[in-house]
Amino acid sequence: MRNLAVSYAGPGKVEVVDTPYPEFVLKDGPGVNPANVGRKVDHGVILRTIATNICGSDQHMVRGRTTAPEGLVLGHEITGEVIEVGRDVEFVKVGDVVSVPFNISCGRCRNCKERKTGICLNVNPDRPGSAYGYVDMGGWVGGQAEYVLVPYADWNVLKFPDREQAMEKILDLAMLSDIFPTGFHGAVGAGVGVGSTVYVAGAGPVGLAAATAAQLLGASAVIVGDLNPDRLAQARSFGCETIDVSLGDPAEQIEQLLGAPEVDCGIDAVGFEARGHGGDSATEAPATVLNGLMDVTRAGGSLGIPGLYVTGDPGAVDEAAKVGSLSLRFGLGFSKSHVFVTGQCPVMMYNRGLMEAILADKVSIAKNVGATTISLQDAPRGYAEFDEGAAQKFVLDPHGLIGG
Amino acid sequence: MRNLAVSYAGPGKVEVVDTPYPEFVLKDGPGVNPANVGRKVDHGVILRTIATNICGSDQHMVRGRTTAPEGLVLGHEITGEVIEVGRDVEFVKVGDVVSVPFNISCGRCRNCKERKTGICLNVNPDRPGSAYGYVDMGGWVGGQAEYVLVPYADWNVLKFPDREQAMEKILDLAMLSDIFPTGFHGAVGAGVGVGSTVYVAGAGPVGLAAATAAQLLGASAVIVGDLNPDRLAQARSFGCETIDVSLGDPAEQIEQLLGAPEVDCGIDAVGFEARGHGGDSATEAPATVLNGLMDVTRAGGSLGIPGLYVTGDPGAVDEAAKVGSLSLRFGLGFSKSHVFVTGQCPVMMYNRGLMEAILADKVSIAKNVGATTISLQDAPRGYAEFDEGAAQKFVLDPHGLIGG
Amino acid sequence: MRNLAVSYAGPGKVEVVDTPYPEFVLKDGPGVNPANVGRKVDHGVILRTIATNICGSDQHMVRGRTTAPEGLVLGHEITGEVIEVGRDVEFVKVGDVVSVPFNISCGRCRNCKERKTGICLNVNPDRPGSAYGYVDMGGWVGGQAEYVLVPYADWNVLKFPDREQAMEKILDLAMLSDIFPTGFHGAVGAGVGVGSTVYVAGAGPVGLAAATAAQLLGASAVIVGDLNPDRLAQARSFGCETIDVSLGDPAEQIEQLLGAPEVDCGIDAVGFEARGHGGDSATEAPATVLNGLMDVTRAGGSLGIPGLYVTGDPGAVDEAAKVGSLSLRFGLGFSKSHVFVTGQCPVMMYNRGLMEAILADKVSIAKNVGATTISLQDAPRGYAEFDEGAAQKFVLDPHGLIGG
Amino acid sequence: MRNLAVSYAGPGKVEVVDTPYPEFVLKDGPGVNPANVGRKVDHGVILRTIATNICGSDQHMVRGRTTAPEGLVLGHEITGEVIEVGRDVEFVKVGDVVSVPFNISCGRCRNCKERKTGICLNVNPDRPGSAYGYVDMGGWVGGQAEYVLVPYADWNVLKFPDREQAMEKILDLAMLSDIFPTGFHGAVGAGVGVGSTVYVAGAGPVGLAAATAAQLLGASAVIVGDLNPDRLAQARSFGCETIDVSLGDPAEQIEQLLGAPEVDCGIDAVGFEARGHGGDSATEAPATVLNGLMDVTRAGGSLGIPGLYVTGDPGAVDEAAKVGSLSLRFGLGFSKSHVFVTGQCPVMMYNRGLMEAILADKVSIAKNVGATTISLQDAPRGYAEFDEGAAQKFVLDPHGLIGG
Repeated sequence: MRNLAVSYAGPGKVEVVDTPYPEFVLKDGPGVNPANVGRKVDHGVILRTIATNICGSDQHMVRGRTTAPEGLVLGHEITGEVIEVGRDVEFVKVGDVVSVPFNISCGRCRNCKERKTGICLNVNPDRPGSAYGYVDMGGWVGGQAEYVLVPYADWNVLKFPDREQAMEKILDLAMLSDIFPTGFHGAVGAGVGVGSTVYVAGAGPVGLAAATAAQLLGASAVIVGDLNPDRLAQARSFGCETIDVSLGDPAEQIEQLLGAPEVDCGIDAVGFEARGHGGDSATEAPATVLNGLMDVTRAGGSLGIPGLYVTGDPGAVDEAAKVGSLSLRFGLGFSKSHVFVTGQCPVMMYNRGLMEAILADKVSIAKNVGATTISLQDAPRGYAEFDEGAAQKFVLDPHGLIGG
Repeated sequence: MRNLAVSYAGPGKVEVVDTPYPEFVLKDGPGVNPANVGRKVDHGVILRTIATNICGSDQHMVRGRTTAPEGLVLGHEITGEVIEVGRDVEFVKVGDVVSVPFNISCGRCRNCKERKTGICLNVNPDRPGSAYGYVDMGGWVGGQAEYVLVPYADWNVLKFPDREQAMEKILDLAMLSDIFPTGFHGAVGAGVGVGSTVYVAGAGPVGLAAATAAQLLGASAVIVGDLNPDRLAQARSFGCETIDVSLGDPAEQIEQLLGAPEVDCGIDAVGFEARGHGGDSATEAPATVLNGLMDVTRAGGSLGIPGLYVTGDPGAVDEAAKVGSLSLRFGLGFSKSHVFVTGQCPVMMYNRGLMEAILADKVSIAKNVGATTISLQDAPRGYAEFDEGAAQKFVLDPHGLIGG
Repeated sequence: MRNLAVSYAGPGKVEVVDTPYPEFVLKDGPGVNPANVGRKVDHGVILRTIATNICGSDQHMVRGRTTAPEGLVLGHEITGEVIEVGRDVEFVKVGDVVSVPFNISCGRCRNCKERKTGICLNVNPDRPGSAYGYVDMGGWVGGQAEYVLVPYADWNVLKFPDREQAMEKILDLAMLSDIFPTGFHGAVGAGVGVGSTVYVAGAGPVGLAAATAAQLLGASAVIVGDLNPDRLAQARSFGCETIDVSLGDPAEQIEQLLGAPEVDCGIDAVGFEARGHGGDSATEAPATVLNGLMDVTRAGGSLGIPGLYVTGDPGAVDEAAKVGSLSLRFGLGFSKSHVFVTGQCPVMMYNRGLMEAILADKVSIAKNVGATTISLQDAPRGYAEFDEGAAQKFVLDPHGLIGG
Repeated sequence: MRNLAVSYAGPGKVEVVDTPYPEFVLKDGPGVNPANVGRKVDHGVILRTIATNICGSDQHMVRGRTTAPEGLVLGHEITGEVIEVGRDVEFVKVGDVVSVPFNISCGRCRNCKERKTGICLNVNPDRPGSAYGYVDMGGWVGGQAEYVLVPYADWNVLKFPDREQAMEKILDLAMLSDIFPTGFHGAVGAGVGVGSTVYVAGAGPVGLAAATAAQLLGASAVIVGDLNPDRLAQARSFGCETIDVSLGDPAEQIEQLLGAPEVDCGIDAVGFEARGHGGDSATEAPATVLNGLMDVTRAGGSLGIPGLYVTGDPGAVDEAAKVGSLSLRFGLGFSKSHVFVTGQCPVMMYNRGLMEAILADKVSIAKNVGATTISLQDAPRGYAEFDEGAAQKFVLDPHGLIGG
């Protein structure tokens, strides 16, 4: 059976190629950890992919900054319909329409039992934590494809209660696999509650999702900062305040908006590929965002950090950054008693509640992040436009099920 | 009335000098913030100091690494007997024997209402947070003195229930003003619970207090690392495992002890004056401790950071450290979903419970940290010996009340 | 100086009478605890009352079911302008417009330090917890008056940041003294979060506030149950679902609305004066609400209980209820692992954040609860109409400052 | 293969009978829910039982107060060695020595994902929550047997890290299946922390485990109340204070011990079969314990309730108790802002940490609860003696592996 998929084809390039149709076993292939080759997946299900999104973290690989091998099938934001169930699956049924958390987890290890599904101990032989279609994450095949295997399905998938209702809101629900929980986790880590003032650094999809999450949690003011005018306009479209960080010190701009130069809660939705603002906006400045957040977050506040920081970055601007080191003004954070909450979002902690909020029309996440459906064949264009800063979140529609 | 006190006398020097007896007003003097001069303190009490300890953070000033002015009266770890009460004091009585949290707080601002007494908004005109006898903390006169003024006394002081019982355990109770809660806060920030494995970097008094706290919280293994053999011996004296960080990689030594190279919980009881280990143990390496903790703390763990990090350090080894910047392997922390909990301990969150534990003989904090009583006159010797790494916590006894 | 106030005048009766203008001392009078007579209140402020609301718990006294003495000045929901400050007040200024938490607290005791301001140890000689104008609560004079004394003002009052802005939203802000935080506390106790389904028993003002709070916290469905059609209509006016408990089993009606007979979170906004539904709706059935909530709240859920239960109720239907005993199906709750969260709301935990939400137009609490301004002179009519079940929350406007 | 097991044989009687050796399917038998008959259990393992304890809740059935059918195999406190693994088991191996949480859970449902394994949705067709060998809990065969089937083994079992070390501490580790986590859950629900004062109602094994847990959590005083002198002596043997509730008001006795009539934390380790004290100690008084706990627990405290309350109790003293209703002084609890935490302990939340504490010699749970090994054949004697109030916790040793 044909299984068209988006594949990494070297720095700056992705291709749509035919790949093997999934079986209930993890076979060898580009990026598959040798210790995972041949792993039986009778606990898995095979999905017909309904929606599969391009993520900013995919871009890190496509830009050639990682050791991702050519031929790696990309994609970890997956929504689909169950078409086959493995022998050991008990509660997921053929025909179920489900969301798949991007972090693969076993549901059996200490960390899963503690709800820390972002650092499952049993799925990636190299270290805690895994994801579909991602370098050094165990080798689970990506989901930007017509079909995809989801292991430990009874544990991993979130079933939508009603198929028809789900298809009506499928673009919103497609955000449950990663971006919406990830933004929400950032807001939770930052301590957002009813009445909080919030600054979100970065107006890419994760930043917009974090801003949406902050609103949903009752924030009284949500301010989003970025360099990209289109993305800032997108943030304003759903009621955020914005600041253009190229125009000067965020603290001053925050003071103009709020009457005080600090917010209660800071969210870093940028991560290690941050660029400087002001005069040096063209160069990378990986510690800029975190240092700026310490500056504008009030004493006693927390920093939620959904933006990705990596342990190694061969293409970084300096030696320190190449090994994932940042020059952080930690003394400033300490003097303000800041708490820093890092790491992959444990999607399963949030996705059910956020699904209920979507189904009850309490939030318009797809609109807020600029979700835009394109065909699987158009994935290369989507990657290119997203890389250029389009204020859009591209959703691939491999089977034309999302429609217009 | 005479009021002998320990005063900073330039880099490397402290002197015992006669200073003004306190009044219910904050008068001008070395280090007093101009905006605080003349501040009325009718809400204060005057204590006859029973015990007042030398703290590692006092050493930062005495080493001349701060902008502390000569003549600054030192001391923020204060236990005493109330001998005068201000006009507005309602619940504290003359004769009460009390512990004074080192962080001065008003009990009226937003942060105090949220229990964040380490960053009170009303006591330090420069920024949130204050302490007695400390540079840039508002100018409240230090307590290494015969008598000291404690503002907002109804809020700040912790009364011991029974005077006689208190005097019997006064050396233990003297640790409630700072070091015991500070170590406990580190353990809480690190997420220590029943059965946890814990690594405490640093076997100075704060490290020993954190190790004690971890035991009290039910840790199954507490490992303390340092370069100083006496301090490591002190840690072993109450049941900790130890590792000598000059002998190589902490992870390997932890593996030998636990069978795994990681612990559940990491505590940084060193702070910004960390020294490298291995070949470069003589030079400062301010990020060493935090980077090492990320290495040995398991994914999903937290780092409690009671060790002090400062916003500026004119005497630091490099430009980055001079402005409080550290080169942190933040990507490593992110990949392990670490949480970093920083800041001054809000003493009032913990001191009552710890007092109860002391009074019920559940913990021997004075013995564990090597509490050693000396006279006020001997303070210069105490500073010198502590600076040389004595495995002792010096407690000044200005009125000869501790005895022994 | 004249000080008109609403005073209890025997079962079923309130009167507007002239009472003493406040001084910075608690003088003897109806309901003042002897141990509080003569208590100095130099830490207090005197307010010109801008808004002071009639509360359901006032009705308990007015109905004659308590030992409240005639002449007791009523009113614990107070918003006003500071016109005099006591000698010891430092941070509150004449001219400040402030909200006053209904629970009086000292800001100095163990419970206040732990944020449990609803059970302050220092204000009521009889037992923990106090309130203005309430029987057995220490004797602090009520605020349904032109002027009122607020003790421990630096701790107790919440200042609105801008006077003009405050006066524009004064009806909403007037809900911060009790009802909005109380409803919010119920929602928090019930564990309401993003996506939760919630059942609120009771559509009186507290129930409507709880429903509003649940929406603000991101609930996906808020269902309100009551017998009173006007109040149910009020609940529907802001997007709640409703069920008429006189029409049968709430579980069945919930199943019709949600497709399942249980909700995630249950809130009891009725309290001890619950009436039965179905055939016996005219008689009191004090355990009805709690037993019903256990029935409709899912296993693992919590019950937030802002509705008042009293230790003694001389007018109750049976001997058990007279001493505050209820026949609870505790085995049912146990089998569902329910958590029951009771007690006076500690207003200070929530009022600042809710104020920010109001000022930022995130919530319309006054509209939702049917806030209706009447003059102080009209208080007797307000009490009567509220007692008859008007779907209104009456706000007294002693100085005509709220306007129309 | 022979499989001797303890079986309910009618009111007051248990027998040791030969029962079917387990297979990887749930077959029909006494007490098996029809909807569970034939359920495939390829995710299960078969254990050779090393230790299996008699529990107070087994007594409820044996006393004939439930609808348990004759022939029901009893036992839900199971520790054993894996001798067969089902086809779908991935991480548990033959030879592993493991503890089995008494609550059976699937590791796949919403509640399991939220760590609420005491109310799993997929194992008991009747309602959330299940257990081995218990009436109305789904029909999973009990473990007071030579061999037992454990479903969802990858999720359910806790492997001891080292077999030899485990066998040395097997009596302590045998308490991890129920009683130690259950007592610990009671202490956690009651809010026990460092320095807390605690009252535990009931000195049976759960009460003694709760007292042990409170000590491990750092309580400054643990007071245990009961009528049974032997059990009180047992509590004193490990440092608890005790009160004999037949000698009068617990509050007075607490005041004599602590100088105040109230404790910070209350734990109900008795449950619905409470007997009155004072004059009426022979009669049941099901609400006595909870009402007494409200009396002696300070305002702001919590009540942890590990003692079992049932939805129906045909043998109860009155009509209310027969349907699980209690006459609770709820108004008293409300006035003190009490929180009530009920329900089966979710063992998996605590068992790993408690295992680490046992293996590190931080706690002697077996000694504290009076663990006493007897043979499987002696089970009838164990039931009888326990029912008579022996201060012992009987551990059955079906294969003579405990020795000693």
